[in-house]
Amino acid sequence: MALFLGEDRSTPKNLSTVGAWVAVALVSLAPLPLRAQTLPLPEQLTALTSAEGQTLLRDSEGLADYVPLTSQFVTQINQAFCGVASVVMVLNALGIPAPLAPEWERHYFTQENVFNDQTEAIIGRDAIARQGLTLAELSGILETYPVQAEIYYGSDVSLDEFRRLIRTNLETPGNYVLINYLRRTIGQERGGHISPLAAYDADTEQFLILDVSRYKYPPVWVQAATLWQAINTVDSVSNQTRGFLLIEAQ
Amino acid sequence: MALFLGEDRSTPKNLSTVGAWVAVALVSLAPLPLRAQTLPLPEQLTALTSAEGQTLLRDSEGLADYVPLTSQFVTQINQAFCGVASVVMVLNALGIPAPLAPEWERHYFTQENVFNDQTEAIIGRDAIARQGLTLAELSGILETYPVQAEIYYGSDVSLDEFRRLIRTNLETPGNYVLINYLRRTIGQERGGHISPLAAYDADTEQFLILDVSRYKYPPVWVQAATLWQAINTVDSVSNQTRGFLLIEAQ
Repeated sequence: MALFLGEDRSTPKNLSTVGAWVAVALVSLAPLPLRAQTLPLPEQLTALTSAEGQTLLRDSEGLADYVPLTSQFVTQINQAFCGVASVVMVLNALGIPAPLAPEWERHYFTQENVFNDQTEAIIGRDAIARQGLTLAELSGILETYPVQAEIYYGSDVSLDEFRRLIRTNLETPGNYVLINYLRRTIGQERGGHISPLAAYDADTEQFLILDVSRYKYPPVWVQAATLWQAINTVDSVSNQTRGFLLIEAQ
Repeated sequence: MALFLGEDRSTPKNLSTVGAWVAVALVSLAPLPLRAQTLPLPEQLTALTSAEGQTLLRDSEGLADYVPLTSQFVTQINQAFCGVASVVMVLNALGIPAPLAPEWERHYFTQENVFNDQTEAIIGRDAIARQGLTLAELSGILETYPVQAEIYYGSDVSLDEFRRLIRTNLETPGNYVLINYLRRTIGQERGGHISPLAAYDADTEQFLILDVSRYKYPPVWVQAATLWQAINTVDSVSNQTRGFLLIEAQ
């Protein structure tokens, strides 16, 4: 499993000599992913695009947000814009009146036109490109539009509350969840990340993350307990734990 | 219904005086779409994001391509790149080895990096930006990668063949359909267009179009017979009818 954890992959010098040999052996034995453009997933995550992932979706109990969100699925346009891409998906899914997108002469949210004087006062676009968004900045940017984006910090929410609050949202059409988590806690490479959640499977207690870095990972099913651990981690920019937003139109 | 047809909306002078008054009256009576960022749909089309559209999806018989395609859903980056966006979606859904995307330092198809010397020999990027792609050019660009993209012209395919060929593809994982149709035949604004098909509902005989101009229309369910009429129209660039491609990895 550690093979697929970001830190171990990118800093093999941290492995013991024995560990390094085991890692090399495992790499040699692993079947080459013939078509993968994305990074390999640890065993504990299930790609939505796999047969098993699609079965989980079909049997999911909380699916109300899946179609509206995937209809607006975008890839973050640079390596720091996961929060910006997530905001754009939710605003378009909610059908919030949007600024003009000059490339099409139509009103539609993009990762270029979502910024305005109010968002610049919260955090400048260039600063986002350097350091990404904290949970509070993410909420603040959303609330410059006619939406409510309630903040839940990982440190303040029990596993039961986490599961219940998000499940209820995913069972209800017209409101959305953005999650801010530490990738390495769920076995991915590597730092803090933001994406929408789109479904819940009650039988296996797994949430579906629509990962906006589509060049890197497919949408994945992850255990609720693991994801809860991944939001109860400290964001070094805010010095607060990560967490999630529950979002609805005003 | 004619209200929503592109030519009638944009050239009201073509309406008779009586027709024009009826049109004005209908516009006045129509409830304002409070949240719509997209254009209104004619009654014969069902938005996937509506309750009815989602029920059709849940009950769909040919759904194998839906999750892989929506996981790669993109918006065409300019008003002529519907074919380019469609190619990118299919190549990423197939997991074809991709060129480098410098913005992320990862290999992933985008509407910027999909072009190469071979595609330039078929049609230059600037020419696509002016006039879009014909069905043959669309197939040619796909086949510069390790895929087969078989061309079916509208004039050569009966309604029964159209339904059967595409339905079979949509029931089968790992292969895809791109459709080239005239928007106004299905009641949309307005010219030739290209997008992936993602599902078939046998009970109502409707296909689901994942429209890549997401700033303009949501994904829609359309009657097979109507869509078949819309591909049996002449593309003035090729002087051939539009049609569809059946695509699989080589």
